[in-house]
Amino acid sequence: MTGTKSGAEAQADPLAAPDTPFALLDVAKVRRNIARLAERVGDLGVSLRPHLKTAKSLEVAALVHGGEPGPITVSTLAEAEAFADGGYTDILYAVGIDPHKLPRVLALLRRGVRLSVLLDSTAQARAVREAAASAGTPIPALIEIDCDGHRGGFTLEHPSLVETGRILAGCDSLAGVLVHAGESYFADGLAEQREAAARERDVAVAAARKLRDAGLEVGTVSVGSTPTAHAATDLTGVTEVRAGNYVFFDLVMAGLGVCDVHDLALSIVVTVIGHRPERGWLLTDGGWMAMSRDRGTAGQRVDQGYGLVTDLAGAPIPELVMTGASQEHGVLSTRDGTAPPELPIGTRLRILPNHACATAAQHAGYHVIDAGETAIRGYWKRISGW
Amino acid sequence: MTGTKSGAEAQADPLAAPDTPFALLDVAKVRRNIARLAERVGDLGVSLRPHLKTAKSLEVAALVHGGEPGPITVSTLAEAEAFADGGYTDILYAVGIDPHKLPRVLALLRRGVRLSVLLDSTAQARAVREAAASAGTPIPALIEIDCDGHRGGFTLEHPSLVETGRILAGCDSLAGVLVHAGESYFADGLAEQREAAARERDVAVAAARKLRDAGLEVGTVSVGSTPTAHAATDLTGVTEVRAGNYVFFDLVMAGLGVCDVHDLALSIVVTVIGHRPERGWLLTDGGWMAMSRDRGTAGQRVDQGYGLVTDLAGAPIPELVMTGASQEHGVLSTRDGTAPPELPIGTRLRILPNHACATAAQHAGYHVIDAGETAIRGYWKRISGW
Repeated sequence: MTGTKSGAEAQADPLAAPDTPFALLDVAKVRRNIARLAERVGDLGVSLRPHLKTAKSLEVAALVHGGEPGPITVSTLAEAEAFADGGYTDILYAVGIDPHKLPRVLALLRRGVRLSVLLDSTAQARAVREAAASAGTPIPALIEIDCDGHRGGFTLEHPSLVETGRILAGCDSLAGVLVHAGESYFADGLAEQREAAARERDVAVAAARKLRDAGLEVGTVSVGSTPTAHAATDLTGVTEVRAGNYVFFDLVMAGLGVCDVHDLALSIVVTVIGHRPERGWLLTDGGWMAMSRDRGTAGQRVDQGYGLVTDLAGAPIPELVMTGASQEHGVLSTRDGTAPPELPIGTRLRILPNHACATAAQHAGYHVIDAGETAIRGYWKRISGW
Repeated sequence: MTGTKSGAEAQADPLAAPDTPFALLDVAKVRRNIARLAERVGDLGVSLRPHLKTAKSLEVAALVHGGEPGPITVSTLAEAEAFADGGYTDILYAVGIDPHKLPRVLALLRRGVRLSVLLDSTAQARAVREAAASAGTPIPALIEIDCDGHRGGFTLEHPSLVETGRILAGCDSLAGVLVHAGESYFADGLAEQREAAARERDVAVAAARKLRDAGLEVGTVSVGSTPTAHAATDLTGVTEVRAGNYVFFDLVMAGLGVCDVHDLALSIVVTVIGHRPERGWLLTDGGWMAMSRDRGTAGQRVDQGYGLVTDLAGAPIPELVMTGASQEHGVLSTRDGTAPPELPIGTRLRILPNHACATAAQHAGYHVIDAGETAIRGYWKRISGW
């Protein structure tokens, strides 16, 4: 465990030591979440390309791949560069490529990193072709395919899909196709998630077939999202699965039934700094700067406010919810309007977040504990910026 | 201007140079916003203690105080320490004090910084008394008073208000009272804002009187929020005004009528990376990681989505709104559902944010331009963490 302190030092850093608010990672839960998906994906006979946009941490990435650099997905070139520095050589940058960023892509390719880009237009494919020609090197590119109208990607019927494949193939840059079932984040329950997973796979395989029917070679057929990766029962024709949120999980995923609240590995430690008994409020020093403004459970069956509350050891405090936030203040109150527990000023609590990707991004790194421990084992830095 | 490049270098860094997304600050607008409030507060005969939680920048703070360190407000001890390093010696930490943080407060006091803390309980006052006694130094403390039920603070009638004052006075630590009209962020129009400002002042003055009537000395009577600071017409009995957002302004403030959209000094530069004409969407590389999840205009008369769109030079593109966001993708579409303008892949745009405090916090610093210029004049780092 990088950053782990020796036994004696660890005892000197209990959970009560760092000033609040801070991000806390339970590495035993991270390992359990990783093992669960690894087993599932192994059973389905495909490889896993974890999306590191949630954790943005070399130490977490090492846990996913058993300590050896393996295939990964990233959301920024800053992540790609940091993971390349950490020895990763097979990286997918899964945001539609801005032609302006191709020089940084080429710089990574020159370093021996197989960095793949993503695109869904002939304009981007032509930019890739020009950059590849002037650099004298192919730029591996995946064509994004849309399966549910969530965001980007060609529909299967789009008239430019095959033309884009031809442009890329003409400069040895056609790596394959990619689908992301983004709407699965609203698929409530296993039945809907299975349907989303089947559609994601069907569309990816159909797109690959369409390109192959046009005489093009399609190596990678990439699918994935945390809900569909856990729900898929058949991935015939798919070569790899992506998922990111699952390493930490969060209340949105618990609300969909993808995980249980006890699986949440990330929490924010806060301190009670005030009481407003006449309003039923406890005030804390963890506001939206510590939690993010994400209210992802607002549209779910149970709105969890800005997060659920546990004691410092992680035991849930029933009915207590973070219901309000300003920049550096959190408001805790009970779901049923009864008086909150009497917690003195200075009491430390943990808040379980709606959306781990957004909450983690508010912090420079994670204080790390192992199962059931109250001593901090290390500090894992996050990669930030673009 | 710290970080300003020489003329020749500036010409080499046009707005098209940095990879997107990035935060852009129009320093001419910052200066104008600062001058507007300075004039107003001067007319009212009180001093200004700007809240630097929005900008978190030494360079912006220097503009507020004409280059000399003056009184400031901060939201974290990390800000207090960074501004102390920058020569500031009169700092108010305006979040209810967690007793655990008093060692860092004492460390700043020992450096000769007059750091004031805020509290609203006898428990916090006793913690201050103990820390002051064991350190052998007073810890200047303001008592927080509630004027509108927004967050923390004693109500005027609270039975512990005077007792808290006595505990602090007993250890030479009673500095004064502080009120923040947090509900003024929902006060639509000047009439409501004037009412909020009058109530804020009335409550602050009444609290000071109550403590003075009990024989206690009250030096500072501090009020403020961006809406009330701009609306107040009479601040008799008040010694200082706080405001923070006003240096940048944002769409929430424009929606309340406190400023005009043309006053917004902060924007996020993004690049078009995709088209979904069948959905009326332009996709950009600026998602919630660049904008934050703040949807502060959602409850206003006009919901501005995740922000309004201008061209790279800052000219508004009528009807175009950032309507959706995932981590690294923005969705732009028109308010009336008509087709968005045909902007090629690679086109750069600016997004004006709902909430400057939240959007700025997603970035490590600001690229700075001056009025009407398209050359970047410098990079101003932000203070982060706690």
